Amino acid sequence: MFISFEGIDKSGKSIQVSLLSDYLKNKGYQIVKTCEPGGTKLGEKIKAILLHPSNKVSKISELFLYLADRREHIEEVIKPALKEGKIVICDRFMDATVAYQGYGRGIDIVWINKLNKIATQEILPDITFLLDINPSLSKQRGRGNDRIEEEKISFYEKVRQGYLEIAKSCPKRIKIIKGEDKPEKTHLAIRKIVLRFLKKP
Amino acid sequence: MFISFEGIDKSGKSIQVSLLSDYLKNKGYQIVKTCEPGGTKLGEKIKAILLHPSNKVSKISELFLYLADRREHIEEVIKPALKEGKIVICDRFMDATVAYQGYGRGIDIVWINKLNKIATQEILPDITFLLDINPSLSKQRGRGNDRIEEEKISFYEKVRQGYLEIAKSCPKRIKIIKGEDKPEKTHLAIRKIVLRFLKKP
Repeated sequence: MFISFEGIDKSGKSIQVSLLSDYLKNKGYQIVKTCEPGGTKLGEKIKAILLHPSNKVSKISELFLYLADRREHIEEVIKPALKEGKIVICDRFMDATVAYQGYGRGIDIVWINKLNKIATQEILPDITFLLDINPSLSKQRGRGNDRIEEEKISFYEKVRQGYLEIAKSCPKRIKIIKGEDKPEKTHLAIRKIVLRFLKKP
Repeated sequence: MFISFEGIDKSGKSIQVSLLSDYLKNKGYQIVKTCEPGGTKLGEKIKAILLHPSNKVSKISELFLYLADRREHIEEVIKPALKEGKIVICDRFMDATVAYQGYGRGIDIVWINKLNKIATQEILPDITFLLDINPSLSKQRGRGNDRIEEEKISFYEKVRQGYLEIAKSCPKRIKIIKGEDKPEKTHLAIRKIVLRFLKKP
């Protein structure tokens, strides 16, 4: 089983990834908790380039860097773990590229989808949790100052709307979860959906 | 005017790039001497990742990294220089990706060509010099031990044949030059072709 978490910065993804991982581990499942960018050694180096505030990165170069990170992650981490029957829980995956580089930066989405297919080898998450928060809350929660998090609120508005559009087009896979509640409450909602999925024959 | 140099490692590209740059500078032309990967600040960081011998890089990730480097290079260096009427002399460009990642690593060439179009914004060199040498000479000349140069001779055979195929399909743009002669002799042959091009109205 492959679960991804999406949402704008400070939507609470990392906490939810941890809470779900711990919960499923305690239930005896083998969990691989990972993230994009930076889920491999190569990815860590790519992430450092992507997020360094003083790096000049054109939007298409940025896209290619995320794709390089993703392909390595699929080959080294995600595919092998799924083959071994583990549950992969990933903090951001392909939808982030559509939301940030597509809706946020304005790169052609049809084209991003094609590239994502190559990068992911068409491995899709079974469930994607979209933690939806208002960009003003993201700012209140104290977004950091890496190259991406420095973006203006209007950028985050576009990314958020993008995520909601993507969710609309994949209602079976993507579950929209309010990211504004207390983490424990959000976790319970997520847990319920995952348990229902795991019970399926 | 945009001139690129191609060829397998140790084919003498760097020397020829320098000789031609110096010659044209002395004739009063404004020259931008550059290279791929690594022609921008971002590119230098990508290059370090690509060539580090201990880095694990899947072939598709490698491709995306070269494309990220190229797009940045086009936007930051090549396009602005050409707009200002300068002569750009570049050590490796898009053909290298077709030869190394396509013919060498076996990635679909039609697909690489499409991605190259995006990375280059369809800016093509006016002339490409392909310095053709036998891979055994490349080895004799002492290939280094970065991640790419460590490849076996059979890999270089495929890359060389790839370059020759590309040259066959673009006979107007790509000039095959024997890379086995003394650098000065090779330089004279190259110079002649460039001067003929510059004299055109």
